[in-house]
Amino acid sequence: MLHYAPDLDRVFQALADPGRRHMVERLSRGPASVSELSKPLNMSLTAVLQHVQVLEASGLIRSSKLGRTRTCSINTTVLRSAEGWIAERRTMVERNLDRLGDYLAETADRPDTAADPEDRQRPMEKP
Amino acid sequence: MLHYAPDLDRVFQALADPGRRHMVERLSRGPASVSELSKPLNMSLTAVLQHVQVLEASGLIRSSKLGRTRTCSINTTVLRSAEGWIAERRTMVERNLDRLGDYLAETADRPDTAADPEDRQRPMEKP
Repeated sequence: MLHYAPDLDRVFQALADPGRRHMVERLSRGPASVSELSKPLNMSLTAVLQHVQVLEASGLIRSSKLGRTRTCSINTTVLRSAEGWIAERRTMVERNLDRLGDYLAETADRPDTAADPEDRQRPMEKP
Repeated sequence: MLHYAPDLDRVFQALADPGRRHMVERLSRGPASVSELSKPLNMSLTAVLQHVQVLEASGLIRSSKLGRTRTCSINTTVLRSAEGWIAERRTMVERNLDRLGDYLAETADRPDTAADPEDRQRPMEKP
């Protein structure tokens, strides 16, 4: 059971920027220094550092400094939490759509079974 | 093959707000009107409408108006794209961690196999 709840506001905010997603993409292939992260992006080292700070504050990445080099790496726990939040909602929608499909197929076969018109209108909200 | 590429900047930005995530959460249980969405949130109808517009612009939800009632529902395609983007990166990190584990186990057994010190330092960036 996971007891660490990441701040999803910060996580999704961090992922909302294409430069930061590019960094996450790069770090998913392995740890990298800040200067390595800056190379493919047309960005100053200062701007890259600011993005690194946003990513680190969200928990998506960790960094450590050895001498003058700061090395960054992905924190999979936080990545998994964000993925899990979306997956739960997506699964719920798909389950409800399946139920609606079953309901429609059933009522098409037996149109006189739903006596209460409310039942016809909002089948997806019933438990 | 999915050819529709949602704007991930907007999708993650839309998910970065707790009120909007609450609405997505509610809509994952079935379609709802804007006034139904506003009830559990301590928010004006105008504020809720603004959030609905952000969610709709991101593609995460769709809405349609019948008379004076606007009904919202989730667009699973966009939800699945955001989930997929994160899942791909998470899978990549985990695969690299597994490779690193294998590499460390292998070099622990045979410490003389890595002749090039570069190979010892950055095993995860090798293809």
